[in-house]
Amino acid sequence: MKEIKKRSYCPISSALDIIGDKWSLLIIRDIALVNKHTYGEFLSSEEKIATNILADRLALLEWAKIIVKEPHPENKTKYNYFLSQKGIDLLPVLLDLIIWSDKYNEISKPAKEMAKQLKKDREGVLQHLTEMLKAQLKR
Amino acid sequence: MKEIKKRSYCPISSALDIIGDKWSLLIIRDIALVNKHTYGEFLSSEEKIATNILADRLALLEWAKIIVKEPHPENKTKYNYFLSQKGIDLLPVLLDLIIWSDKYNEISKPAKEMAKQLKKDREGVLQHLTEMLKAQLKR
Repeated sequence: MKEIKKRSYCPISSALDIIGDKWSLLIIRDIALVNKHTYGEFLSSEEKIATNILADRLALLEWAKIIVKEPHPENKTKYNYFLSQKGIDLLPVLLDLIIWSDKYNEISKPAKEMAKQLKKDREGVLQHLTEMLKAQLKR
Repeated sequence: MKEIKKRSYCPISSALDIIGDKWSLLIIRDIALVNKHTYGEFLSSEEKIATNILADRLALLEWAKIIVKEPHPENKTKYNYFLSQKGIDLLPVLLDLIIWSDKYNEISKPAKEMAKQLKKDREGVLQHLTEMLKAQLKR
């Protein structure tokens, strides 16, 4: 794991030191919103992350305790990745990015549906997702 | 301006195509929360952005219509940068990152104070900041 240099004691900077790139929040999205949990599943996502970048980001997110890695119950050579409480606490950021993109970017129909729900009841959606992800963590 | 490749129609991916890096949200922070508006002011921030990265990110954010550039009233060779409505609409993301870092990262005392305010009244802080930034835009 290469060392992460903390650039300042600004909270925004400190967060971006770890998740400020084009891929980390997509892995977190895959776990939180698409119910993906394995290396192969992340690799198959539409954005086509490269294997070396995926391996690098998974190691970083695990090091930062944002995700936790568990042996796959059916295949000892594979792992399942889940969000830790620290990872679950990034959900508000994901939801705000959805609301923002719904206003300014061209997005898919299912995403538009989710944005509609979010604009109606952001707190409710957040609570529902949080509970679902916490239950995965406690298994 | 190098072309931005849209990786998918996922709203999170579409947002990260533009602001998914270690610096863009720090420039947006400087304008929104630190009342900085010029190239020289951004350059002087604690994280020490390199001049070529700053120039690149300002051009990208202007191209994406997240910031607007205006001639400096007192010095025609300088510019002032403001957040557009699209930029102001990224405030929720900044505020969520502050709340998250307050919980998990070592941050400055003034940032801790702001996080305390946010946890008490996120909506109120958001509304106050939004109005302040909109007023800058309308001048």
